[in-house]
Amino acid sequence: MSPELLPSWRPGVTRDALIEFLTAVTEVPSEHRVAVFDNDGTLWAERPVYVQQHFLVARLHDAAALDPALAERPEFAAVLDDDHEAMAAFGLPRVALALAELFAGLTPDEFATRAREFVMTVDHPTLGVPYARTTYRPMTELIDALRARDFSVFVVTGGGTEFVRAVSRELYGVDPEGVVGTLIEYEFDGGSEHPVLIRTGRVQGGAMEGQAKVAGIQQFLGRRPIFAAGNSGGDREMLEYTAAGSGPTLALLVDHDDPDREFAYRSEAATIAETVPITDVASAAGWTVASMQRDWSTVFSET
Amino acid sequence: MSPELLPSWRPGVTRDALIEFLTAVTEVPSEHRVAVFDNDGTLWAERPVYVQQHFLVARLHDAAALDPALAERPEFAAVLDDDHEAMAAFGLPRVALALAELFAGLTPDEFATRAREFVMTVDHPTLGVPYARTTYRPMTELIDALRARDFSVFVVTGGGTEFVRAVSRELYGVDPEGVVGTLIEYEFDGGSEHPVLIRTGRVQGGAMEGQAKVAGIQQFLGRRPIFAAGNSGGDREMLEYTAAGSGPTLALLVDHDDPDREFAYRSEAATIAETVPITDVASAAGWTVASMQRDWSTVFSET
Repeated sequence: MSPELLPSWRPGVTRDALIEFLTAVTEVPSEHRVAVFDNDGTLWAERPVYVQQHFLVARLHDAAALDPALAERPEFAAVLDDDHEAMAAFGLPRVALALAELFAGLTPDEFATRAREFVMTVDHPTLGVPYARTTYRPMTELIDALRARDFSVFVVTGGGTEFVRAVSRELYGVDPEGVVGTLIEYEFDGGSEHPVLIRTGRVQGGAMEGQAKVAGIQQFLGRRPIFAAGNSGGDREMLEYTAAGSGPTLALLVDHDDPDREFAYRSEAATIAETVPITDVASAAGWTVASMQRDWSTVFSET
Repeated sequence: MSPELLPSWRPGVTRDALIEFLTAVTEVPSEHRVAVFDNDGTLWAERPVYVQQHFLVARLHDAAALDPALAERPEFAAVLDDDHEAMAAFGLPRVALALAELFAGLTPDEFATRAREFVMTVDHPTLGVPYARTTYRPMTELIDALRARDFSVFVVTGGGTEFVRAVSRELYGVDPEGVVGTLIEYEFDGGSEHPVLIRTGRVQGGAMEGQAKVAGIQQFLGRRPIFAAGNSGGDREMLEYTAAGSGPTLALLVDHDDPDREFAYRSEAATIAETVPITDVASAAGWTVASMQRDWSTVFSET
C-alpha cells in the first residue's frame, strides 16, 4: 500500500482494518465490489440540522412571505414559529412530508437547480462554510480508494433521492442512478409538443431507513454490498446485511465523538427489549468503528 | 466515422440518422449522454412468447408436478391447460403476477441463478437457439457505439427487473443498477447470524409501461435520456419524452416487418379516440424507424 493511501486517517486499528480490507478485495470479482454509504452524518455533517431540513425550512419561509395563508397549516405554523415542541409532536417525517409539497409542480431540473444552489452557497450554521464543504475528508478519501479498486460506489440515504442527487456527482463522484433514497412521485404531462415530468407532493413508499435500506439496495442497485458505512440506527440493517456476506466484507460505523471539531452524539438502535447506542451494536457485531476524535486527522473537506 | 461503425445496419436513411446523432452528441456534456432501451422486442425477440413468460410457465409446470394442488388456482389452471381464452380473460398482467408468486421465498441470488440458466440454455421455440442468442445484433452494435461515446446505457423494461438483471451484463453490458423494470417487494429477515433478504409474491407499484417508464427513468436513473429505443405502445411516452429534450435527441422505433427472418406484427398505441399502429405515431412524431427487413443486414447476434 502506498503511503498516500487514506492520508486523513490516523495510524491505528481502524485504518489498519480499512487497509486490510482494501488489500483483500483485490481477490474479489469486480462485479461484487459494491460499496454503499449513508449520507447524513456519514459523508457530511447532520448537526445541528439536516441539510435538507434547512433547505425545506428556508423554502417555507420564502413561500410564506409570498403567501401568508401557508401559516394556517399546523405543520407549517410550527416550523415558521420555530416551535420545537409542536414539531416534535408532529414528528420530523410528517413535517418533512408537508414541506416537500412546497416543491410540487417543479420539473426534476428545476428542483435540482434549487437544491444545488442551496448546498453550494448557504453556510452551515456553526461551521461557517457552505454545506458543500462540510463533507468528511476521510470518507471521501475512502470513496476514492474504493473506486480506485474498481468498486461501484453508491449512496443510500434516508434523505430525499433528488436532493442528494443534485450534488452527489460534485461531492462524491456518484452519478444520479447511484443514489437510493426517499422518493417523490411524478406525473407525466404528455401528448403536447413539450411533454414534461413534474413533481407531486407525494412520497412513494416510506422513508429509506432501516430494513427499507436493505430492500432498496436490492431493488435499486441489484447487488449485495461488501462494504457499507453508516452512523445511525437507520443504518443498522444495511450494516448487518453487508457484514454477513461471504468473502471479505467491512461494516464501518462513524462515531460522532468529537465535540471540539464536529459534534458529540450517539444514535440509538432499537432492540427487542430496549434501545441501545448504535456503537454498542457495532461492538457486539464486530463492525469497524471510526472514532472521529481518535481516527481522523482532518475532519472536513472544506476546500 | 469509421466504416466499421454499425456494420449490421444497411446504408440508408435510418443508418444515416443514427450516424448523424452519434456525430452530433460529441458536443453534448457527457453527463447528459443517457440512452434507454426497452428490452422485449427492442433488444431481443418477444414472439411467439415473452422470454420471461416462458420462464414463468416452465416454473409452474415444474412446481405443479411436485404439488398438483397448484392446478386448483384458476390462473394456474389456465396456464397448465394452455387455455388461451381463459388466459386472455384474466389478462397477462394478472397471470404474470400469479406466476411471480411461485418464486416467493428465494433470495435474489437464487432467483438470478435460475433466470440466467433459463435464458442461457433454453431454446427459443422457433429460432432453434437459446434465448440468449436472440438478441438483435444491430441493437447491441448501437449500444456499443453509444457507450464508446461515453453514454450511460440503461434498460427500461415492462418485464421483471430481476429477470432482466440476471442477464443484462452478459447480453448488453448493463450493470444491475442500470435496469429499470417491474419490481418485486422484498422482506429482510435480520437479527440472526445470517440475515437474508427474500422475495415476496408481491409486485411493488404497477407494471413499468407507458407513463410509468418516464417516471421510472427519473426515479431510478435521475436523468432525462437523449436517446431512447422501443417497439411498442408501452414505449410511446418514453420516446416522446426523449424526443422533446433540448439539443440532439433520437427516438428509435423498431418495426417488426420481417416475417422471413423474425416476425411481422405491430403494436398498437392508444390515442384519445382510437388505437393506432405505433408506427403511425412514429411517423407523425418524426421518430426514426428501424425497419427490420430494410435496415438490418443481420438480425440476431446468435454467436
